[in-house]
This record gives sequence, structure tokens and C-alpha cells, in this order.
Amino acid sequence: MVIKLKIGADIGGTNTCIGVISSEGKVVCQQSFSTCAYHEAELYADAFAQTIKAAMSNAAKIFGEAKIEWLGLGIGAPNGNFHNGSIQEPPNLNFKGITPLVALLEARLELPRIALTNDANAAALGENLYGAAQGFSDFIMITLGTGLGSGIFVNNQLVYGHNGLAGELGHMTIIPGGRNCGFGRRGSLENYCSATGIRRTFFEMLAQHGGSTSLDHKSISAITAKDVADAAISGDSIAMATMDFTGDLLGQALASFALVTSPSAFFLFGGPVQAGDVLLAPLRQAFERHLIPTHKGTVQIIESALPPGEAAILGAAALLR
Amino acid sequence: MVIKLKIGADIGGTNTCIGVISSEGKVVCQQSFSTCAYHEAELYADAFAQTIKAAMSNAAKIFGEAKIEWLGLGIGAPNGNFHNGSIQEPPNLNFKGITPLVALLEARLELPRIALTNDANAAALGENLYGAAQGFSDFIMITLGTGLGSGIFVNNQLVYGHNGLAGELGHMTIIPGGRNCGFGRRGSLENYCSATGIRRTFFEMLAQHGGSTSLDHKSISAITAKDVADAAISGDSIAMATMDFTGDLLGQALASFALVTSPSAFFLFGGPVQAGDVLLAPLRQAFERHLIPTHKGTVQIIESALPPGEAAILGAAALLR
Repeated sequence: MVIKLKIGADIGGTNTCIGVISSEGKVVCQQSFSTCAYHEAELYADAFAQTIKAAMSNAAKIFGEAKIEWLGLGIGAPNGNFHNGSIQEPPNLNFKGITPLVALLEARLELPRIALTNDANAAALGENLYGAAQGFSDFIMITLGTGLGSGIFVNNQLVYGHNGLAGELGHMTIIPGGRNCGFGRRGSLENYCSATGIRRTFFEMLAQHGGSTSLDHKSISAITAKDVADAAISGDSIAMATMDFTGDLLGQALASFALVTSPSAFFLFGGPVQAGDVLLAPLRQAFERHLIPTHKGTVQIIESALPPGEAAILGAAALLR
Repeated sequence: MVIKLKIGADIGGTNTCIGVISSEGKVVCQQSFSTCAYHEAELYADAFAQTIKAAMSNAAKIFGEAKIEWLGLGIGAPNGNFHNGSIQEPPNLNFKGITPLVALLEARLELPRIALTNDANAAALGENLYGAAQGFSDFIMITLGTGLGSGIFVNNQLVYGHNGLAGELGHMTIIPGGRNCGFGRRGSLENYCSATGIRRTFFEMLAQHGGSTSLDHKSISAITAKDVADAAISGDSIAMATMDFTGDLLGQALASFALVTSPSAFFLFGGPVQAGDVLLAPLRQAFERHLIPTHKGTVQIIESALPPGEAAILGAAALLR
């Protein structure tokens, strides 16, 4: 019997993780190498191809080489463009400009297919193929991390748009004239509702409410969104106000986004979602309250069912469906 | 030679217009009847079917009955739902609730196909088949009138969403806590940038700037968005500030909307677009300024090429493509 395997790769600012994925969506083996050590795309592609080959020979040891059919390599990358297989102007990688990564890897590997997209699109594909979005044809995936990413499904297809760059909901203006967010733009969603945004809101709540918090002993640089979420769960009032504000704003924004493609569900993924009800209760409330009457009660908010440590490589592998 | 003809129908709050459309997108003949005279959907459907039959026999007089192949009837309706052929809770029609108009007409007419969608979706289909959006596969149509409607194309298909209600950009919140807009919601785009919104902004500018305007002789109830646009073209400073504010806000909103489906163009249709540069110059400026770097210079703003008097029935007929 032939065993069909895919390779999924997730490019992060620090590390690149590579996994071999079975047709049932199980991670057979996994390894990683440093992304930030490389300042030149050619050298990075060399290391990338070597790690892929190592992962492939690991899988061959497990299953026996003769039995494996390799379906290809799917890559999730920050600012990855599916249409041209390039990484375009990534803010957090050391190789700048436009890197034609698919072409660089095609020259180094013999695989039937290599495809690339951005990490949030990969997450949407992964959720649809292996996670909670199985059977959903119109949905929106929201990923909360350093930034806020999104992947949009319409008619059972991922939306890429005319230039491969669709689904950048994190950059949408939700508070005109609000927080500075780079590019000279202001008030974008990700500056409020990403992990980074939660941290900024915590300082805003400190300013507004005054008084003391259970995080007072920590240095400013050490405070993370997870600290704030944990403090909220423990009943710290300023941390609770922070999560409340975040959930309320994200709920409002999702109710507004529902007006565009009319999805039947939003799927939420990422660290802040682990906070649970301190974030999700105000989020769901604000969402229902701000939906237009014809949408009320018809759009679900669902937590991702992808395992956090494997979601990115599963999503990348799902590109090859 | 067989002549293939479609019928397009546009349901307005006051009148329902029906046109016979040739395969080249020419209106062969046109007639209308009162919408608002009917408070019961069954009686409205009777009048609708009679007018269709009259239009068909008019066309038969022109071409000779034996030569005509009727392709079907496409209908554009406020709150029209393509998925179930119904009009759902229309705010401006006298028959309330859910009217299964396609089913009612199928029982009264023998046509190979009857389909219905909302008026802005019909406009997008019409622009794509007969107007300036020919050859565009990813675009957004914006219609400015009493409200602000939109129709979204992705991968050369109109987006309907899971419930047939996608593309309601006019209800998106652009100013949190802003103008009251019904349903208990606030700050939606259409309350600023529709014809109705322009009129409201004129009063806001009167409040902000004080002084006199060239419209001072008119009664408040008589002032229309067209009056404000004409006054702006003639150099009235408060009317100019109104159009400037409207264009700036709509430009910002479109730059934000471009982040969702990444269209290659927005097409603008409706009375306020006729105002020309007093609206479109600030709109284009704000649009470019608020696009993210990867989108700058890649998304066009294009005026509709559909003839204003025929756009709605052409769009409705385009449903049958």
C-alpha cells in the first residue's frame, strides 16, 4: 500500500518549522531551523531544502522509502503571496524585498508541487481540512498573535483577490484617528485586538482607571498578553477591563465584517483565544448586539480545533488539497 | 434567425420597471406599474405578471412572435435574496415580512427561468456584463442612493454568502458611536455617504461652519443631495465642505474594504457620482492615502458606464447570464 504524505512548513520570524503530514492530518515527524540566522534568501533556501530532505529521510525510515508517495510542500509565510509564490516585504524577516521562495525551492527539491500563502490563509485552509471548519463553505478565520491575520472562504474557496493579498482584516480601520499602526495609518483592528494590542490596551486601562494591579511587580517590557489574560482570569480589575474592551471591540468588528461576505461562522485561533470567557463572553455579546437583524442568531463564533503547536504546519500542508 | 431576449425588472418603493433586453444589452421596450399601490403580495404578483405579459407582447409586435426565444426574467429588489427567491423584510415596500416573489411569479408565468437578487448585486452583475466592469473578475460595485448598496465579485462570481445576504457594506460601522442608523446600530457608512447621508452632513456643516449658503432660501424638507452637489459645483463653501467630507470618508472606507477581498477596482454608481470632481477628487485622494503599501496604486476607482435610467433593469437581466 502506498502512503501519501505532504510536507507543511511554517515560516516564523525566529524559526522555520517543517512537518511531514499524513493524509489523516497527523504530524508524522517535525523539525525546525533558524529563520533569523539568514540575511540572504539564497542561503535561507539552501537551509530550507536541506531540512526538507532531512524530514523526508526521517519519514522514509518510519515507513520505508518505497512505500511513500510525496504529494508536495505547502508553506505558510508572513506576507506570502499565493499567486506568485513570493514573500513580499515581510516586516519581521531579515531578507527584505520580494523573495521568490517557491522558485528557489523548486530549483533545490524534486517535489510534484510547491505552494505558498500567508500564515492566516494557511490556518483557514487547515481549519477547513483538518479542524472545526470541516464542511463550512463560507467562513472567516481570525488568527490572533503578534498581529491579527485572517483567511476568508467564499463558495468553498479561499479568497485571494486580484493580487493574492486578500484577507487583511487586521489592517481595517475600526477607530478613525485611533492608535498609530505604521504606514501612517491609524486605528486598525490589529492594534487593538492582537496580542500586541491587548498589551497596549492594558496600559490604556492603567491610565484610565489608575490604582494598582496584580502585575505591578513586573517590568513593563516583561508584560505579555498572556500575563494580562491570566490576571483577568484571577480577577484583577484592570486586566478584566482590558479583556472586556478587547472582546467588545473584536465582537463589534466581526459583526461589521459579517456584512461583507456573509459567513456562517468565524473561527478564532491564537494565544489570546486560550483566555476563554474573559475574552469570549464580551466578544459574543458585542457580536450579537451589533449584527443587523437579518444576521442575528445566524452566525457562529467557534474556537479553532487545530492543536496550537501543529496548526501552522497542518494549515500549510492543507494548501495542497 | 432566433432572437434571444431577457426580461429585467427593478422593484422600487414607488414603481416597478420592466424592460425587455436584447443579447447586446439594449433595452428593446420598457414599461412600469405602481409598487406602492399594492399592500398584498399576491395582488402585486398579479400586476407584475400582467405587466410582464404586456412587455412580452410588445416585443412580439417588434420582432414577430415566432422569432423570439425568451431566456427568462431577472429581478432586482430591495432586500432580495437570491438563494430563496424572496424579498425579506423590505423597509420601503408595503408588503412586509417574507415575500416568495419568484414562486409567486413562477405560478403566473411560463418562463424557463426566474431569478431575484438585491438591487446592488444586480447592478454589479449588470456592470460586469454590459458596463465598465467587463473583464473584471474581482471588483466591488458601490451604489449611492437613498441607501448605500454593494455587490462583490470574487473569482468572477458574485458573492452571496451562506444566506444570500452578502455585500451589505452600507451597514458597516465606520464611526463607532456615530450617527443613529436604525436597528439600534450607529455610525454606518450609508448614514454618511449615501444621498441621504450627504443631506445629513450638509446640516452638520451648517452647524460647524455657521454663516450663510446659497441654499438658504430653500425649506429644509426640499433640500436634496443633488442641491448640495450643485451648490458645491457653484462654489458654495458649506456645500463644498459637505462633498469634501463625504468623499474623504468614502475614500477611507473603500481603502479599508480593499483589505477584505482585494478587488482590482471599485465601480461607483448613483446620483451623487454625477457630482463629479467635487466628490470624486477628495474620494480618490483619501483612498490612495489610506491604502496599505502593497495595495497603493493597484486598485482603481471607476465610474459606472451603465446608463442611469436603464442600469437597474440591465442589471436584473444580467442575473440570467
